[in-house]
Amino acid sequence: MAGVKTQVAIVGAGPAGLLLAHLLKAEGIDCIVIERVSGDYVLGRIRAGVLEQVTIDLMARLGLDSRMKAEGLYHEGFNLADGRRLIHIDIAGLTGKRVMVYGQTELTRDLMDAASPRGVEVIYEAANVALHDIETDAPHITYSKDGLNHRIDARFICGCDGFHGPSRQAIPKSAGKAYERVYPFGWLGILADVPPCEAELIYANHERGFALASMRSPTRSRYYIDVPLSETVDDWPDEKLWDELAIRLGPDAAAHITRGPALEKSVAPLRSFVFEPMRYGSLMLAGDAAHIVPPTGAKGLNLAASDVAYLSDGLIAYFNKQDSAPLASYSEKALARVWKSERFSWSLTRLMHRFPEDGSFERAMQVAELDYIASSKAAQTAIAENYVGLPL
Amino acid sequence: MAGVKTQVAIVGAGPAGLLLAHLLKAEGIDCIVIERVSGDYVLGRIRAGVLEQVTIDLMARLGLDSRMKAEGLYHEGFNLADGRRLIHIDIAGLTGKRVMVYGQTELTRDLMDAASPRGVEVIYEAANVALHDIETDAPHITYSKDGLNHRIDARFICGCDGFHGPSRQAIPKSAGKAYERVYPFGWLGILADVPPCEAELIYANHERGFALASMRSPTRSRYYIDVPLSETVDDWPDEKLWDELAIRLGPDAAAHITRGPALEKSVAPLRSFVFEPMRYGSLMLAGDAAHIVPPTGAKGLNLAASDVAYLSDGLIAYFNKQDSAPLASYSEKALARVWKSERFSWSLTRLMHRFPEDGSFERAMQVAELDYIASSKAAQTAIAENYVGLPL
Repeated sequence: MAGVKTQVAIVGAGPAGLLLAHLLKAEGIDCIVIERVSGDYVLGRIRAGVLEQVTIDLMARLGLDSRMKAEGLYHEGFNLADGRRLIHIDIAGLTGKRVMVYGQTELTRDLMDAASPRGVEVIYEAANVALHDIETDAPHITYSKDGLNHRIDARFICGCDGFHGPSRQAIPKSAGKAYERVYPFGWLGILADVPPCEAELIYANHERGFALASMRSPTRSRYYIDVPLSETVDDWPDEKLWDELAIRLGPDAAAHITRGPALEKSVAPLRSFVFEPMRYGSLMLAGDAAHIVPPTGAKGLNLAASDVAYLSDGLIAYFNKQDSAPLASYSEKALARVWKSERFSWSLTRLMHRFPEDGSFERAMQVAELDYIASSKAAQTAIAENYVGLPL
Repeated sequence: MAGVKTQVAIVGAGPAGLLLAHLLKAEGIDCIVIERVSGDYVLGRIRAGVLEQVTIDLMARLGLDSRMKAEGLYHEGFNLADGRRLIHIDIAGLTGKRVMVYGQTELTRDLMDAASPRGVEVIYEAANVALHDIETDAPHITYSKDGLNHRIDARFICGCDGFHGPSRQAIPKSAGKAYERVYPFGWLGILADVPPCEAELIYANHERGFALASMRSPTRSRYYIDVPLSETVDDWPDEKLWDELAIRLGPDAAAHITRGPALEKSVAPLRSFVFEPMRYGSLMLAGDAAHIVPPTGAKGLNLAASDVAYLSDGLIAYFNKQDSAPLASYSEKALARVWKSERFSWSLTRLMHRFPEDGSFERAMQVAELDYIASSKAAQTAIAENYVGLPL
């Protein structure tokens, strides 16, 4: 078995893992990233597209924000809709902050492109990844690639390998607690090379269900509707989906929808999940490996980024300042922010979707809440400050 | 059958009916109030105790606020609690408004004592109340008293007779829509002549359930806990109830609880209910006859007062200015405020109680929401502006 040694072994080369590797490497800390699939496969996954300033700042700190600055779209607001009207949330006016529309795919590509020039080692297509001795100070990872078995010894392992990855599974169940809610619907998304119907996002709760009008650029739109989990993309030919979007987004938005063929169409389930603590021995979890939010509110990638901010601070202090205190408080610090984002994502999901168990009273409460938000600066501010991201 | 004629017949001599009668009488409009039970029975019902400024202003307009001014306690804040700490909501600082602790019983007594001196006619112990011809311009009421049948002819009938009264029942089901949610618990209340544990109210969501520390005066306290609907006062001897309150309200409050024998102890169910529209022909509904809120947030009496404010304006314009427009828009105006209060009451109920269907994730969301409220001025302002009452 071929073996190497490093300071930090990172499982997963999605945005969390790559961002962490770059932040460590920039401080001279040795690390290796291993990834189960290929780089092209990672980039093929269509994910979130709204970045908090916290996430933008991390890319800027790495000097990897030049394309983001050129192509990202700063948004100063977004809209809630009830099928009749748009309720504008002026996030810049209410909070002094903005968000940026820039696809997770693009951010991952920027990190990936910079890896080799900066000496960040990423091993793709690493099969059978397994974590060992994580309860000790000398953990190691094994994997196989090209028919050979490999081993990486490290002081720490960082699990950035998503909800289904091996890292969290390596922690004994009795050593933590999992909180979970699975939602009774999925998001059917369509990506198309057409201009967006609105300059800013629209989250709509129509009597017929949820819809989201989003975008990746001035010429590429991303739309979603919620569908029962029993339905697949085959139930939704393009024209039927565009018809439904036009209804659910309401007449003002519908008048500006440009239709086009689907570049991509898929159904994603919605889940809320938190595993705590986010550290077990020498293993630290970050991003989706530790927690999942439903996409309403666009918090998934941003939470991964804030985890990585805390975690890199902890590792840098440990290796470069011989100070283990920041790393010791990593889980507690990260979870405080995680729970706040979990709450916001859950709350916005509940406000904007129809649930099978809801009757006419619960529907009336959603309408009343949207009416109240439309009338109250305090309610709008509460939504806006969560949307732009609470401070680190 | 003995018969009389009046301009407005009011069914129900609770606070809504009496307040309406006084407001009409003050403008020279003729009215008669009929009530199924006795005046003593009405005063024996222990109800809400927190008044919005809107309600206080109505009593002031009538010149019936002298005892209220002398005995009512202005509160500039209240507390949310999670079993560990108190989260203070500074309603005066956040909204510039206050609320007043003054029992519904006291307000009703003030209205009742002033009835006879001001020529407000109230007929107590009127049995078999029935409404007739309400779809016409010449409705009438029949009832029996002291073995005799009576009839009141009026231009309008106002149903202020609560959730179980005959007024709403007189409207054909097809002429409106009912929205309802029944909660899977009740509030067990205890009234005792002991000083309150805190100067301001505490709404607590402890792992073991809800608790509320409230008061009627500096020497009379009102406490509640939520209990399964299967439980009765017999399941809760005084000492057991005091013990439970001390746990649920948290250590800081518990240290200041003074125990005392129960003057009154009862279990009240919790319900959200709205019937719309609030007018059918010559019948207008006001207060609990049209809508019920769970007591969390203390909106029931205040909603009745704002209904009556709108309704009296409409009737005064109709009779004294020959303008039927304000009365025509009564239901719409009143319902806009009703739905906002329904939303707040439902939302605070959901935040502060454990529901049988909730798992550990939902509990974590309640804790996260309380943490968020503790940290956010916007979230506190949103709660405070609802608590003091949205503008008429």
